[in-house]
Amino acid sequence: MASRNLIASGRKIVAIGRNFSEHAKELGNAVPKTPFFFLKPTSSYISNGQSIEVPTGCEVHHEVELGVVIGKDGRDIPASQAESHVAGYTLALDMTARNLQDAAKKAGLPWSAAKGYDTFTPIGDLIPKDSIPDTNNVDLSLKIDGVTKQNGNTKDMIFKVPMLIEYVSSIMKLQAGDVILTGTPAGVGPVKPGETVTCELGTKGTILSQLRFPVVARPNKP
Amino acid sequence: MASRNLIASGRKIVAIGRNFSEHAKELGNAVPKTPFFFLKPTSSYISNGQSIEVPTGCEVHHEVELGVVIGKDGRDIPASQAESHVAGYTLALDMTARNLQDAAKKAGLPWSAAKGYDTFTPIGDLIPKDSIPDTNNVDLSLKIDGVTKQNGNTKDMIFKVPMLIEYVSSIMKLQAGDVILTGTPAGVGPVKPGETVTCELGTKGTILSQLRFPVVARPNKP
Ligand SMILES: [Mg+2]
Ligand SMILES: [Mg+2]
Ligand SMILES: [Mg+2]
Repeated sequence: MASRNLIASGRKIVAIGRNFSEHAKELGNAVPKTPFFFLKPTSSYISNGQSIEVPTGCEVHHEVELGVVIGKDGRDIPASQAESHVAGYTLALDMTARNLQDAAKKAGLPWSAAKGYDTFTPIGDLIPKDSIPDTNNVDLSLKIDGVTKQNGNTKDMIFKVPMLIEYVSSIMKLQAGDVILTGTPAGVGPVKPGETVTCELGTKGTILSQLRFPVVARPNKP
Repeated sequence: MASRNLIASGRKIVAIGRNFSEHAKELGNAVPKTPFFFLKPTSSYISNGQSIEVPTGCEVHHEVELGVVIGKDGRDIPASQAESHVAGYTLALDMTARNLQDAAKKAGLPWSAAKGYDTFTPIGDLIPKDSIPDTNNVDLSLKIDGVTKQNGNTKDMIFKVPMLIEYVSSIMKLQAGDVILTGTPAGVGPVKPGETVTCELGTKGTILSQLRFPVVARPNKP
């Protein structure tokens, strides 16, 4: 499935926070004892090669993540049956206006704007489920202008994919086309207009997805 | 348009917080100087007559709201052109697990779970735009078992509909089928299994929508 199909038909994006302890620590946060998540709007999707926009006044951070694409509707899905609800995987970025998120956290306000700007969810094509037999051994990396910034492996996830599907579906039913973003490894940081972000997903030495996104300033209002 | 079309095709629900000063005060919050919003998943929609579920451990509050249904895609929509992007209006409830929201606010965490459980967005049919010539004079009321709990008018909104469309679309593009929930008047409070919630929307003495939702306990996991 090309990312444009996901972008056209996706219903929701459920993004897990602080799922890698080194990343939780680098932002000064406690390591969570239960998962938590926020929603991103599907209007924030862009596909490979499109531009990530930096809105005026926003410090925009990259977060490279494994995305789980739901293929079958379900509610209260037990972890033991989670895999049967998965269509496949994808490589995605959870772009974040870190300064707005920090302000929201302090004020006890929602993260939705900080996480939801247009272009804040760059996403790749569907990776067939069979290509990733073990979701606990996926390499994720990200470079800015060729310099490595993030380089992690999903073995360091605090909450594993089946448990995340169980948790999310105990609150909100999952529907075909929904995407769960499973959290980012350490190394997040700002992107600036003029830079180019590249990222890669692989397993056991095989590269399964490579994406490239130029960074631009969000155009001013007309 | 029947609510089932909205439920089937809607992309996102953008819900404005604290848009009535009496409601902001009743929860001990400051009256906001700029709007803020959170996202609800479209998987939380139910239509007239379906049951609102109370999950175990949740204190679930009713919030009756005017919904704005987007009819035309747009980004950076100026308030002066906002009306041309509106397909019509709807009556909706922004059901809220208040205890989870309070905990999230204290911890600086997202509101998404507290606002996003299945059945937490009961919604009526589309009310044609022409039926509401003035969005600043819409009556909203809600009863539990026939006893009035909320009874307000959108004249008391802090941020008016055109400004809300301008604000939201300056962050995330609006797409046909998106719904903006515009905030609730004072009088929010808990609903309990066995009760029946009814709500009404009207303008200048004409009732435009009447909805009814039984309240049940969320069934236990299989
Ligand atoms: Mg949120
Ligand atoms: Mg993230
Ligand atoms: Mg509300």
